[in-house]
This record gives sequence, C-alpha cells and structure tokens, in this order.
Amino acid sequence: LCSYNHQVNALDNGLLRQPPMGWLTWQRFRCVTDCKTYPDTCIGEKLIRTQAQLLVDGGYLAAGYQYIIIDDCWLNTTRAPDGSLQPDNQRFPSGIPALADYVHSLGLKFGIYEDYGTETCAGYPGILGHLEQDAKTFASWKVDYLKLDGCNADIKDFDTGYPAMEQALNSTGFPIAYSCSWPAYQEFSKIKPNYTAIAQTCNLWRNWADIDDSWGSVYSIAQWFGDNQDRLSPFHGPGHWNDPDMIVIGNFGLSPGQSRAQMALWSIMAAPLILSVDLRTISDWARAIILNKNLIAINQDPLGAMGRRILKLDGNVEVWSKPLEDDRVAFVALYPDPYGTPIQVTISLADLGLIRYQDYNFFESFNGDFLGKYHYTDKYSCTINPSGDVHAFYVESAAPTKKFRRH
Amino acid sequence: LCSYNHQVNALDNGLLRQPPMGWLTWQRFRCVTDCKTYPDTCIGEKLIRTQAQLLVDGGYLAAGYQYIIIDDCWLNTTRAPDGSLQPDNQRFPSGIPALADYVHSLGLKFGIYEDYGTETCAGYPGILGHLEQDAKTFASWKVDYLKLDGCNADIKDFDTGYPAMEQALNSTGFPIAYSCSWPAYQEFSKIKPNYTAIAQTCNLWRNWADIDDSWGSVYSIAQWFGDNQDRLSPFHGPGHWNDPDMIVIGNFGLSPGQSRAQMALWSIMAAPLILSVDLRTISDWARAIILNKNLIAINQDPLGAMGRRILKLDGNVEVWSKPLEDDRVAFVALYPDPYGTPIQVTISLADLGLIRYQDYNFFESFNGDFLGKYHYTDKYSCTINPSGDVHAFYVESAAPTKKFRRH
Repeated sequence: LCSYNHQVNALDNGLLRQPPMGWLTWQRFRCVTDCKTYPDTCIGEKLIRTQAQLLVDGGYLAAGYQYIIIDDCWLNTTRAPDGSLQPDNQRFPSGIPALADYVHSLGLKFGIYEDYGTETCAGYPGILGHLEQDAKTFASWKVDYLKLDGCNADIKDFDTGYPAMEQALNSTGFPIAYSCSWPAYQEFSKIKPNYTAIAQTCNLWRNWADIDDSWGSVYSIAQWFGDNQDRLSPFHGPGHWNDPDMIVIGNFGLSPGQSRAQMALWSIMAAPLILSVDLRTISDWARAIILNKNLIAINQDPLGAMGRRILKLDGNVEVWSKPLEDDRVAFVALYPDPYGTPIQVTISLADLGLIRYQDYNFFESFNGDFLGKYHYTDKYSCTINPSGDVHAFYVESAAPTKKFRRH
Repeated sequence: LCSYNHQVNALDNGLLRQPPMGWLTWQRFRCVTDCKTYPDTCIGEKLIRTQAQLLVDGGYLAAGYQYIIIDDCWLNTTRAPDGSLQPDNQRFPSGIPALADYVHSLGLKFGIYEDYGTETCAGYPGILGHLEQDAKTFASWKVDYLKLDGCNADIKDFDTGYPAMEQALNSTGFPIAYSCSWPAYQEFSKIKPNYTAIAQTCNLWRNWADIDDSWGSVYSIAQWFGDNQDRLSPFHGPGHWNDPDMIVIGNFGLSPGQSRAQMALWSIMAAPLILSVDLRTISDWARAIILNKNLIAINQDPLGAMGRRILKLDGNVEVWSKPLEDDRVAFVALYPDPYGTPIQVTISLADLGLIRYQDYNFFESFNGDFLGKYHYTDKYSCTINPSGDVHAFYVESAAPTKKFRRH
C-alpha cells in the first residue's frame, strides 16, 4: 500500500464520496426522554425541527453540514402490531415520515439510529429478526442515513449481520448511507476486525470509544487513531470512512484552543464531521471554528486521505500530516502539555516529508495567512499554545501547476 | 470546633486578613529563561513591569488583585561575593529594588519566591544557611510577600525551618506576608502536618499538588480539599489560609464553564486568588470571570470561612457551602460529568443547611439575579451545565437585619 489514493474493493452505493458532515443528537442531547423536566432538550420532533432549521439559518448547511441524524431513544418501547418500528408517539406525534419530509424540505438529509441486537443501547427494540422489514421501513420513510449500533448482540454475529443489513438496505433501492459500529465492539473485545469486509459493507464505521465532552476524551481518541493508523488508513477513502466519533465543539468541556484542536485533527484525519451541539446556544467562537472554510476544505479534500501522525517531539508535541489534491499537504502540530507556556518547535522540511528539491509556501490553515517560503533544506519554526491547542498549516509547491482554492 | 468563626492561635503579623489576591508568574510563564527564543515571556523585569502595568490598567488592582509575585527562576545561579542573593542580571538589569519600587509606584505590592532548601526547584540558590541574611535582603528590597518552596531540603527540617524563617522575617521589622509550601511536601510524603504550628507561622500555605492548566488538575485539587476539609478548615481564617494554588483562568486549558467553576470553587473555599495569566492576551470572557465582583466578595468575605463540600448527588453533582457575614450563605453546585446534557437537581433547603423556620431569598452569584423566595420546608431546583460547569448562588434571610452589599 504505497499510495494514499489506494482504493480497497469497497461498498459502492455512490454515497459519501467525501466524509459525511452533519449533526447528531447523541453527545449533546443523549437519551433525554423526560419532556416535562426538559421540554426544550428531550429527544423528539420539536428538537429535530428546531435544530434542522438552525442548521440552515446558521449557515451550517451552506458550509456542508447536510445530515441531521436522530440517535438512540426515538423509538417506542414496542414494535407496532404488524412488527414494524414506530417512534415514541408522545415525542414524535407527527410521525417519522412527516419529520423526514420537513428535513428534506429544508435541503437537509435525514438520518436515524438503530441497533443490530435485540435492543438498542438504551433498551428500545433492535433490528435482530426484522432486518428486511426495518430496511423497508427506513426506505419508505426516506431515511438517508442509518447509524447501526451493536449493543445487546453477539459480537461474533457482526461479520455476517452487518453485511446482511447492508443487503437489506440495498434491496430497497433507496440510497441509505450506512454507519456501522461493527469494528468498535470488536476492537474493545480484542477481536481483529475484518476492515476489508467492513469497507465493502459500510460507508463509515465507528472504530473506538464513544466521545464525550472533555479534552481527555478527544485527545485519547486522536491518540488511538494515531497509534493504529497503519492498519486503519488503507481502508479510508471516498465512500468508506473510519469514524473517530462526533465533533463536540460548542458544548461545555473544551476550551477554545482544544476546540480548534478537535476541528484540526478531525479535518486532517478526513473524519466524518458530525456535530452534536445545541445550535440555539452555541457561542460565536465555537461556531466560527465549526464553519471554518479552510479546515472543512482540508477535511473534504477529494483525495480522501486519512492523515497520519508523522512526528513526536519534545513536550509531547505531535505533528500530523495529510496529502491534499493539487500537490498540497496539510499539517497539524498539537501541544497537549498543560504546563503553562507556549512551546517553540523547529522541524526540518525533510521531517515534514517535504523532500523535493524545491521551495514550498507555508500558510496558516485557520485564516489562510502566508507564513513564508521555505527551501526543502530549511527548517520550519512555529510556536504552539499548550493544553491541547494546535498550530495548523498547509504547504504548497512554490511553483504550483494549478490554481488553489483558498478561502 | 463548632463555629466557622473559630480562631486558632495564629501568626499575627497583621497581614492578609482576607485571602490574598494577586498575580504570580509560575503557571503561565514557568521557568522560561531563554529571552532570545521567548523575548516577551521570559522571566525578567520587562515581563513583570508589563504585567504590573496591566494589573492596574485592566482594573485588576481595583478589583483587589494587589500582589505581583515573581516565582522561581529570577535568581542568578550563584550568590554574590558577600553571600547575598542576586537576580539574573541579564533578565533583571535594573535590579530587584528598582523593580519593587516600580511595582509600589503603581499601588501594587511586590512578592518574590525562594526555597527553604539548598536549591530552588529549578536549581537556583536556596536559603538554607542564609536565613537571616536573606530575610534582611528581602526587607531591604521592600519585598511584601515571600513564597518559600520546599525543594532540595529534608522535609523533617520543615517543622523548625519554616518557623525559623518566620522569625528572621519578623526580625527585620518589615511586614512580609509569608507563603509556605511546608505542608504540601508533608502531605505528599504521608507525614501529618502540624497545621496548628503552620497557621501560627505562615499567612498561607500550599497543601497539595501544583495546579496546571487543565480541568483535570483543577477538579482533582478541589476534590482533595473537599475530602480533607474537616482537618483543614479549622486552621483557615483571617491572616492564615489554606492555599489550593493558582487561578489558571485565562490560559489555554479551561472552557468558559470550567473557568466559572474554578472561580466559584476558589471563592467558596476562601482560597487565595493568585492569577497566573498573560494579561496582554486574556480574553474578555476570562477577564470578566476573574473580575466578577460578587464572586470576589464571597471570596473576601470578612468571616474568612473555608467553604465545605456538603452534598454529593446524582451525576457526581456536588454542592459546596460557605457562610458569609450578615447571615448569608454562598453555594456552588458543580456538575463534572462530561455526558452531554445539563442536569436538573432538586435539593431540600434542609439539605442545604437552611433550617431556620423562615423564608430565604435566593440569588445567582455571578450576576446577582433574584432566583426566588423559598420557605425552609421547600425544595430548590436548578439546572447545571455538565463538563465542569457550576450553578453558583447565595442565600439571605427574607427578613434581613442588615443591608446587603450586592453588586
């Protein structure tokens, strides 16, 4: 596997040629079903309609955040008499088709959650024994995206079960992006996932821990992906993506610098950018990070390469790198130590992998500022704030062959 | 010990009748001595003068932040030929007396760091063998505050050594607030500190771990003080304070909610409010938290009571309480779990310790908003954001006997 463009033999339902971007209920709204105590945040059609409208009005859809996805806790505790899935009718009184239609009317796509097992993680009916029926239900509701979790199931069944659901979805004829939790349960159980089969079956797949609203969680997940990049990156590309879980920016646990770090790292990993935040109360600074055009362009770069952690330096500084189209490369230098002072690091261009006999132009990624021209024998110095902040930059040949789309 | 007003037989140099407020180099600027690489942040007179001016211009002094303190790494690597301490003369070319005069000319007080042992923690000359000479030097320089660390020393000597330095300081006749690291080293070595002696010797003392710029650090330190409050609070009061270490707000590692939490918890602990932040670049929101008049008033309340963690509730929510003058009580409810959604908690006034047969008025602490009148048999409900945010409130009798100083 010598090229970032390498294509595995993968699922080709034509969907998600770029990492999916959207919004999901889980991290921010969890399984709040008590609408009496929490009328504005309980999982229900009111919440989804409100957030969908804000995805449009706040400029998120225009920036690429297209999917709005309901995670666990939308279901009724029992199936309908005919065995079909049904939502909780107190919280979804208009039904799912009407909600999906509303979402579609805004120009968004509609996603929903289910679970491969007997019950979802929160205890609602799972799809086991109803794969074809449920696939047809989702298609009839015009569900554009299915997140299929793996609670309350036998992990040994996943290698046949997740493909069986993919067949059932395909058979409906309605294009449904397919997000699998298949390898996440296997990785946690020390079972080696068959990523070849997973990439042939799923458009994206959760590999590791659920994220939560803390820097410790964000950082540890990024480290896991760095530690396992050699075996994950070959399966990552247009239509089939490793998924380090949601963007938690805009909630309560990340500082501004740590928020920049998650956006920069998820962009360089070409990870799905699935927000989970209350768009009614998000701060201006968090919104600006989420909507940063340059970072999104790095994430959505057509090559679809999963960035790699290429260097570890003093102070636990690490450098990640991702090749972009038009012969450009994006970098992120992260400084996690919480010991007060920014650090200055000096890195040879050779160590950055910039080894052609030429000059390179450096640009800061968040704002596009020109940082200087460097010869391939030079060293690049930058200062990085501590406690999880990043310096993000991208590099292009100083004698480019194409025009760049800079924002 | 049945009263918060209980006074131990304590040091009475007349200083620090309220918890000290000020600014210290350590957390933000550490031991940066390379002024070539870091010209704007290395430890030296230029940095101190700049920050001192900003303490005044930014309104910090007016809010009570009065001390500006140089931590480790100001010293020359050797003593002068006559054995006296001397600063690094590259970084302090004008000398310490001129710097102290400048600080005093701004209306601030001047503090400095030394170490009881043979060397400071960073390897500069310690005071061992020079106690009287160094005390005289500090007095001659008009040092108002001495932080005396405990690196490179025999911890067994602290019970005599720290009092010996107090005697040397007292003998100078110049009033010097005395900050001791004495019990911190003992607590870490599982030696039971003699807090009676410590409170008779020191104006404040570090009890536990050095803080760093992360929520994990802030939270774990607060937990340690809660876990040990029964044995610490009797020694806490006007002129003698337990010290959970610096305020790290305004740096890189805390979210806005976590910053509110540190300010609220340190205020309710009546902890020293010693900032360590670059006042040139602090954000408006962080500055507003640091300068919050109501929180500062809770911290500086004349009773000087160390607040206590009184309740642990679902979701690891904890409630802290601190009695204030004029029969008021301040509370903080902290919700550390990083699992997405705010939590609503309902607490009986009895569980808050509000047990008189009367009504109470509740006010939000940060902004002073009236939250309602509650009868002593009522329950109080509030919603707390997760990931380390707090709900801070204070309560007064609904039939007060004095006028309150609300801001």
